[in-house]
Amino acid sequence: MFKKILIANRGEIAMRIIRTCKEMGIKTVAVYSTADAESLHVRFADEAVCIGPPQSNLSYLKIANIISAAEITNADAIHPGYGFLSENAKFSKICEEHDIKFIGASAEMISKMGDKATAKATMKAAGVPCVPGSEGILEDYDECLKLAKEIGFPVMLKATAGGGGKGMRAVWKEENLQSAWDSARQEAGAAFGNDGMYMEKLIEEPRHIEIQVIGDQTGKACHLSERDCSVQRRHQKLTEETPSPFMTPKLRKQMGEAAVKAAEFIKYEGAGTVEFLVDKHRKFYFMEMNTRIQVEHPITEQVIDYDLIREQILVAAGIPISGKNYEPQLHSIECRINAEDPYNNFRPSPGRIENLHAPGGHGVRIDTHVYSGYIIPPHYDSMIAKLITTAQTREEAINKMKRALDEFIIEGIKTTIPFHRQLMDDPRYVAGNYTTAFMDDFKMNAPEE
Amino acid sequence: MFKKILIANRGEIAMRIIRTCKEMGIKTVAVYSTADAESLHVRFADEAVCIGPPQSNLSYLKIANIISAAEITNADAIHPGYGFLSENAKFSKICEEHDIKFIGASAEMISKMGDKATAKATMKAAGVPCVPGSEGILEDYDECLKLAKEIGFPVMLKATAGGGGKGMRAVWKEENLQSAWDSARQEAGAAFGNDGMYMEKLIEEPRHIEIQVIGDQTGKACHLSERDCSVQRRHQKLTEETPSPFMTPKLRKQMGEAAVKAAEFIKYEGAGTVEFLVDKHRKFYFMEMNTRIQVEHPITEQVIDYDLIREQILVAAGIPISGKNYEPQLHSIECRINAEDPYNNFRPSPGRIENLHAPGGHGVRIDTHVYSGYIIPPHYDSMIAKLITTAQTREEAINKMKRALDEFIIEGIKTTIPFHRQLMDDPRYVAGNYTTAFMDDFKMNAPEE
Repeated sequence: MFKKILIANRGEIAMRIIRTCKEMGIKTVAVYSTADAESLHVRFADEAVCIGPPQSNLSYLKIANIISAAEITNADAIHPGYGFLSENAKFSKICEEHDIKFIGASAEMISKMGDKATAKATMKAAGVPCVPGSEGILEDYDECLKLAKEIGFPVMLKATAGGGGKGMRAVWKEENLQSAWDSARQEAGAAFGNDGMYMEKLIEEPRHIEIQVIGDQTGKACHLSERDCSVQRRHQKLTEETPSPFMTPKLRKQMGEAAVKAAEFIKYEGAGTVEFLVDKHRKFYFMEMNTRIQVEHPITEQVIDYDLIREQILVAAGIPISGKNYEPQLHSIECRINAEDPYNNFRPSPGRIENLHAPGGHGVRIDTHVYSGYIIPPHYDSMIAKLITTAQTREEAINKMKRALDEFIIEGIKTTIPFHRQLMDDPRYVAGNYTTAFMDDFKMNAPEE
Repeated sequence: MFKKILIANRGEIAMRIIRTCKEMGIKTVAVYSTADAESLHVRFADEAVCIGPPQSNLSYLKIANIISAAEITNADAIHPGYGFLSENAKFSKICEEHDIKFIGASAEMISKMGDKATAKATMKAAGVPCVPGSEGILEDYDECLKLAKEIGFPVMLKATAGGGGKGMRAVWKEENLQSAWDSARQEAGAAFGNDGMYMEKLIEEPRHIEIQVIGDQTGKACHLSERDCSVQRRHQKLTEETPSPFMTPKLRKQMGEAAVKAAEFIKYEGAGTVEFLVDKHRKFYFMEMNTRIQVEHPITEQVIDYDLIREQILVAAGIPISGKNYEPQLHSIECRINAEDPYNNFRPSPGRIENLHAPGGHGVRIDTHVYSGYIIPPHYDSMIAKLITTAQTREEAINKMKRALDEFIIEGIKTTIPFHRQLMDDPRYVAGNYTTAFMDDFKMNAPEE
């Protein structure tokens, strides 16, 4: 087992990793920028090394500084958390070259899954369903029509140079394809000087549902069921839950098997997440694979009594997994509490937390790195806490979340607590009836006086 | 279902009950003494009524004031928590007379279980093992010898007027009985002017292990397994865990069945705890029954994903229980964090909490009513928080408790955190090898600099 792990991250995930290391009797090294000198991860690690100024590219992304910190402290492994260098193939490789175990995917794996085209081709080869579409640019209308018939309507025409919806057409019936093709090409040509088009199957009422997998060094993998992350704003997840209210036992079995197949096909080592889009017919399509721990991993831990960080460390140390797939026994919801003003277009609200009182009691978990008096630096992402509730049923987990949000006091800055509180009363959310488009027409109520 | 519940208590248990009521959509009324005006239970309840000055007998124990508060707020039920009026037969009866549901035992049940002799006689009649002994004072040595042979050595001779160990003899063999009888009588006569003696079986290396039961209005009861509360100081529990490290599946079955038998025999309604002494041979003996929620109930909740306060409310509303017995699926430990100085004979340390930072993360639960700036009044018991850790194994739960205790920052007062931290490293505790005598030879190490 590792003797000392350096955590190449900050914030709540650094705290999360330090906690598990302490519980496993492994020493820890925190690294920090000068903006984070007063952070809890610095206080609670056994050692701490300052690696540079606040700007990430001069500290948390600066590979040389982090490797130096590991060398001077004799760390024998590095946990990268999420974000920063967690999916950086070069960093993974340099760790390996320095004989420091990178607790994450190999450089080869990161490269393979980091490039969308390669990832999709690999998954296709593994037999995992991907969004059907053209291989590159469509030659002409004949090819367009042929392919549309092949993959079935509705389809999406997209300009290869496109963006902001320009040169993009959803086509639901064959009779509308020709005119869509013509107008989209014209629009794209005018807007981008490039009228190259490609096609993808249109995913109707898509849900973002991901499967947690874990693979070991023997090439064996298992899955730990799903997380529904469809409530997103500009592709940023706001809240997640497991099980997905849209899930069926059959779909879980299918998606779980596909995810395990994907992981075993590439001999994936460590914790990873296979993200799928699921359409209204419960057909699912590979989106991407994240080769790291996810922000939302706690809800999985809560429903199967599993410590995912611990498993990451065990697998990295060469210990085989049990190979058993896990089914959720409870229901768990996570709300990401961000220092943002939900009444002002979620504008970041850094600054000093004047007063903090966290909720507690039965079924409540909090992962945070902030405290009364903590100054949120403006340099990093705005998440300051994860509030997780767990109960026997979804309804109970929602009710528990409401009362926990009501108890959560954070003064001095704006937070997304009022957003989550309103969300938990939203009839569509309560009914479990939401897709990735949910936030498009979500409006905050007037703030309470 | 009840519309509004008045909580006739303060501190963490008042918060605990308010939380479940909120989750169930039931309105709450807090009552408070003038010393508790700034308490969280006052803040988080829907309504709050001041019921008197700090002295308990003028507020939290003042039945008339509490009934008045319930009447003016139209509460249709009262939850008494633990302590105060929770096992007061008169209060239970007065609630009933005022058509307010008392969420606890009936007056008759409280009286029956509150009197030790009646409780023991009832349990004997139910077929629950009790500590064997004489019915009152022994006539003479012949009776003494006859009874000792009947119940088996070792036995305990006790002076009926005794105290402080005077006139008390443990006798392990028949050949020593006569001399012990003579000397104990002489000693008792000299010390108390009364040489009346009675006898009880000596419980060797006793452990305090209790079984949580719940019964409904149909007379059905089930058990939710055990809690080991042997680590006590002057009969005050300091830490509890479930499962008991001393438990076996066979013993759990026997004790569980005995507890259910006891509850069903008396048609017990609500949550209750049957406390047993268990000797080193794993024989168990009824000690007493607590007809209320216990301080240590969360560890049971953690290992079976159950909300005991919710069950109390459901049962009180006439909803039948499932009748299934529950086995622990995980391991959970509770440390009672008291405002006491463990380096100074656990002397109470009331005052202002200058700074508070609670631990969090995977497997950590905190039940508390205090916060940064809270002033602990000197009038009530010294418990300020319950720290509960839960994991797959006992070893992991202990390791989690250590790291959680290390994270727990409470400044401005003394607390029992250093005691618990040392306990979690104590070889006997770690081995699960402790009895109710554990604290007799426990010494605090020198405080860390």
